[in-house]
Amino acid sequence: MSETSTVARWDESPFVKACRREPTEVTPVWLMRQAGRYMPEYRAVRAKVSFLELCKDPALATEVTVTAAERLGVDAAILFADILLILEPLGLDLEFAKGEGPVIHNPIRERTHVDRIQPLTDVAPLGYVMDAVRSIRSALRPETPLIGFAGAPFTLACYAVEGGGSRHYELAKSFMYRDQGAWDALMERLVDATALYLNAQVAAGAQALQLFDSWVGNLSPFDYRRFVLPHMQRLFAKLTPGVPIIHFGTDTGSLLELQRDAGGHVIGLDWRVELDAAWNRLGTGVAVQGNLDPVVLFAPRTEIENQARRVLNQAAGRPGHIFNLGHGILPHTPVDNVVALVDLVHTHSQKSRAPG
Amino acid sequence: MSETSTVARWDESPFVKACRREPTEVTPVWLMRQAGRYMPEYRAVRAKVSFLELCKDPALATEVTVTAAERLGVDAAILFADILLILEPLGLDLEFAKGEGPVIHNPIRERTHVDRIQPLTDVAPLGYVMDAVRSIRSALRPETPLIGFAGAPFTLACYAVEGGGSRHYELAKSFMYRDQGAWDALMERLVDATALYLNAQVAAGAQALQLFDSWVGNLSPFDYRRFVLPHMQRLFAKLTPGVPIIHFGTDTGSLLELQRDAGGHVIGLDWRVELDAAWNRLGTGVAVQGNLDPVVLFAPRTEIENQARRVLNQAAGRPGHIFNLGHGILPHTPVDNVVALVDLVHTHSQKSRAPG
Repeated sequence: MSETSTVARWDESPFVKACRREPTEVTPVWLMRQAGRYMPEYRAVRAKVSFLELCKDPALATEVTVTAAERLGVDAAILFADILLILEPLGLDLEFAKGEGPVIHNPIRERTHVDRIQPLTDVAPLGYVMDAVRSIRSALRPETPLIGFAGAPFTLACYAVEGGGSRHYELAKSFMYRDQGAWDALMERLVDATALYLNAQVAAGAQALQLFDSWVGNLSPFDYRRFVLPHMQRLFAKLTPGVPIIHFGTDTGSLLELQRDAGGHVIGLDWRVELDAAWNRLGTGVAVQGNLDPVVLFAPRTEIENQARRVLNQAAGRPGHIFNLGHGILPHTPVDNVVALVDLVHTHSQKSRAPG
Repeated sequence: MSETSTVARWDESPFVKACRREPTEVTPVWLMRQAGRYMPEYRAVRAKVSFLELCKDPALATEVTVTAAERLGVDAAILFADILLILEPLGLDLEFAKGEGPVIHNPIRERTHVDRIQPLTDVAPLGYVMDAVRSIRSALRPETPLIGFAGAPFTLACYAVEGGGSRHYELAKSFMYRDQGAWDALMERLVDATALYLNAQVAAGAQALQLFDSWVGNLSPFDYRRFVLPHMQRLFAKLTPGVPIIHFGTDTGSLLELQRDAGGHVIGLDWRVELDAAWNRLGTGVAVQGNLDPVVLFAPRTEIENQARRVLNQAAGRPGHIFNLGHGILPHTPVDNVVALVDLVHTHSQKSRAPG
């Protein structure tokens, strides 16, 4: 009995209703990287452990996830993890080098390297993530949905080929131009592993999923269609039916229709597009998430209010808007401004729905 | 007499005709950063002098500019210089640190710092640029137009505030959000100086101009309208009438109409947009330049041909297309592929215009 009523509660949360494009009394809001370096509670945890240690410790991952959700009063929590964790059990030698970001010591540079990516037949090596999902789920208020996530295959493939961050992605793009067969084989392995991983998060208690295709906006529409779209369609088809999926990328102003065709119930927008114009292009079949510029959170309060209201007004009258930033919260963002933003979204959206 | 006939020749070049949206027998092509590190002749010069020394030596600047134009067989040359050179006489302490890119040691972080930007009443401190323009002009084939250029005020302001490169532009954006009055004052000084500088390049012999707003694509349309558009309109109004101006940015898929409203005869497109869709949005009043992904030049020849033909076909039948990359040539690009691209653009565009 109690489990049934718990399920009913998050299932009627503003966040999940917005994913289904149902009207809500308030616009739901959560913020990418809401558990992150900008927050003193997070920095206190990170002072004791490395980033990877934090990701792999379900108790600490739970602490930072739940603390952020409660301190901010947001409408959803997101699992604390990293999109690259999946690359380790796939056979890549991943290190989070201090001050340099992630480094992969055995990158996929040739056709023959693709076999380094082993099929993931069992999520046991990522069991710590599923443990974190279970632990977070039981620590969170029952009405707060928990979002699981993964990196989208293109973004993972870029890391795997480049061996780390990149500015122009010349190794990854050269790879796909040079040998589409090998590229497709790489993407297929990533799709299969990602589907298994995301479905395991759902089985462990995640009630929604977000796919981060953070780097896909560097592709032309022509290349997205050839090298990404079919793989994304195959991935979406493999995901647990009924679970809302947010399909997010940055710099995707020219890719929105293709991303929608790839899949997802909610399309994540960055700040480079006007939310209303983007949603009109996407049509009536999807919800949208976004899209305040994260740097606006460094601005004076009046500017934050002005810009947040603008985003809300662009979505007004159309069910299915989840307020978020256009990308993650930046490390030096003032916490008070983040708290104020969440309040403002709730207050303004409630007021604007009030009759008269 | 001879000068008049020289003028007539570049004035009827495919490049200048395309800027005016007149039909041409061949699609003109030049490539951003065509004189750059990918070319052995350039590296040989750079082995002897620093980047700033090269910029400030009109004979060497002429050598690298003319060598690149002739070796590639392109339809226009572009002055060898750097968009940041103007910041020195304006009062900023600019250094090109090895391996780190440009550094400004006295960045504009506060309202009171704006006064560090001195009005440029005379271009004498940038005389070496005008000497280079004159020298290049006399060394180039008379039928090859010479493009002068400058950084657009927003991109310059970002450098001035950030003190160098940036990923999120949080200092620059925070500055504009915090104190629009000071931001406008900074932009006004940059507009005045840039107009003087570009008009001096025209007086020295540049037959077209390109404004590089390389970083403007990080702004939302809302912010572009408030913080950039009026300044760009004022800048365009100050430029020598009759000289074709190319208005270029990257990541500007959501800003194209605003950029067109800001000014310019030609809008530069990056590879993230489809050229035909972008041109349709821009309407009949402007030419376009672009838009091959620079990374395609690392691909096998068949892929380069496939993608270059796609770009040409998207522009087919509409006068006013200048072929270019969507951004500058990358340092490790194979020279042979660049030469082959220029040939292909000429051959394919001539063939597709042939009757029957």
